[in-house]
Amino acid sequence: MSSLVTVACAQLDPVLGDRDANLAALDGAIAAAVERGADLVVAPELCLSGYVFTSREEAFAHSESPDALVELARAHGVYLVAGFAERDGVRLYNSAAICAPDGLLGVYRKLHLWGEEALWFEPGDLGLPVFATPFGRIAAMVCYDGWFAELWRMAALGGADLVCVPTNWVPIPGQAEGQAAMANTLCMAAAHSNGLWVAAADRVGEERGQPFIGQSLIVAPTGWPVAGPASEDAVETLVAQIDLSAARRSRTFNTFNHLLRDRRTDAYDLR
Amino acid sequence: MSSLVTVACAQLDPVLGDRDANLAALDGAIAAAVERGADLVVAPELCLSGYVFTSREEAFAHSESPDALVELARAHGVYLVAGFAERDGVRLYNSAAICAPDGLLGVYRKLHLWGEEALWFEPGDLGLPVFATPFGRIAAMVCYDGWFAELWRMAALGGADLVCVPTNWVPIPGQAEGQAAMANTLCMAAAHSNGLWVAAADRVGEERGQPFIGQSLIVAPTGWPVAGPASEDAVETLVAQIDLSAARRSRTFNTFNHLLRDRRTDAYDLR
Repeated sequence: MSSLVTVACAQLDPVLGDRDANLAALDGAIAAAVERGADLVVAPELCLSGYVFTSREEAFAHSESPDALVELARAHGVYLVAGFAERDGVRLYNSAAICAPDGLLGVYRKLHLWGEEALWFEPGDLGLPVFATPFGRIAAMVCYDGWFAELWRMAALGGADLVCVPTNWVPIPGQAEGQAAMANTLCMAAAHSNGLWVAAADRVGEERGQPFIGQSLIVAPTGWPVAGPASEDAVETLVAQIDLSAARRSRTFNTFNHLLRDRRTDAYDLR
Repeated sequence: MSSLVTVACAQLDPVLGDRDANLAALDGAIAAAVERGADLVVAPELCLSGYVFTSREEAFAHSESPDALVELARAHGVYLVAGFAERDGVRLYNSAAICAPDGLLGVYRKLHLWGEEALWFEPGDLGLPVFATPFGRIAAMVCYDGWFAELWRMAALGGADLVCVPTNWVPIPGQAEGQAAMANTLCMAAAHSNGLWVAAADRVGEERGQPFIGQSLIVAPTGWPVAGPASEDAVETLVAQIDLSAARRSRTFNTFNHLLRDRRTDAYDLR
């Protein structure tokens, strides 16, 4: 039992609708990450199905239970946080499975749906669960969720040390050539202002004309990346050994200030 | 009546306890900014008194009403948001005066006190007021307030188009040579994820061994700076003409997504 953990972000290029290929790519990335010492692997949003569905029928056809991801974690003896299209009866969710080597810890269902996702998926209905592991406490959120500071704060208040972010970031208007992705900026600000580790695994490539921007990264509670940003267009895996206890320590700035205890809940009106 | 406004951030180097010199420096910076077309000038935290007090007696001696700042705004025919040590009876606050050319709009009192400020100042007790001007709606917050995403969100929910930030940013552990200030990252993330203009006026120099980091900036609702970051160590003024209506427009991402309406208040638990 140590708070040291080696985290990997597998930046992949899933193929829309080709589950066999996507599962094989994920399996290969996990094997390579474990080879490099990974205890925990984070994989992109909807990494078994692809992203750009054009009908509920299509989304339904490519949705499933978390069983395949649980089996991958078990086979490689690793923790795995991966995005998948979850089917629960007639309902579909854009979810992340949080898997331990010995079984499913739980599922996070994306609370903030982006664009046409709202046409196929139900909004998340499981809140933001935080899971205990031998190395510390972890939570997951997905892509557009990261635009909502409320959710990062809930993760910290809920005790999370590390937030894993399966994502499919898309280009944002206003970014000049060579500037860091605004999605990276959001992860850095959230890490710093909540005292959290953040491990965001994005995808690359394009589906039906929609490009994705890569730039996966692992951010320390200081707010500065310890690995990445990864490239904008290549499949690659970031690996970093991190100490989850640093998250809790980082919240105390000095004798007077603690990030979470300094909140003025008496003054906030956030309806 | 137009939503176009020319905003200036006056990055100054106040001298602890030398009110005459500080008032003269601010007066000069406002005059120069108005010369460059400024309609609204933002000045640093505690810009008339300096920052590093070592007793309540000293803080009390250097505190005052907003009258001098109101007079400056009137004399130059400009809007002014400036930090000052506010005395209200026996109470002291780390405040920002929001002044119109024809008088005081109101005062913001820093909600989140940093370090030894808690020994001299009362915590803010006026919430986060938003003020109407001919060019749009403005709010103010001060320095460490910017670490609390709740406050940026309250500004946006309260209708602010522009948040003015008088500040005295100090160095933060973990920053490598040449990296952008984390305080800048927080402003960019807040602007982007709330659809706000941000005009942060920092100070430079050092007081009693405490250095300040400059790097004032004006950020668009896209999250990217339109002026600055300014230097780390020089007195200078940033000026940019901006369109406050762009803040409101920026919150609509597409047919399905609006930053503020997408909030899942049903799922947030932020006690």
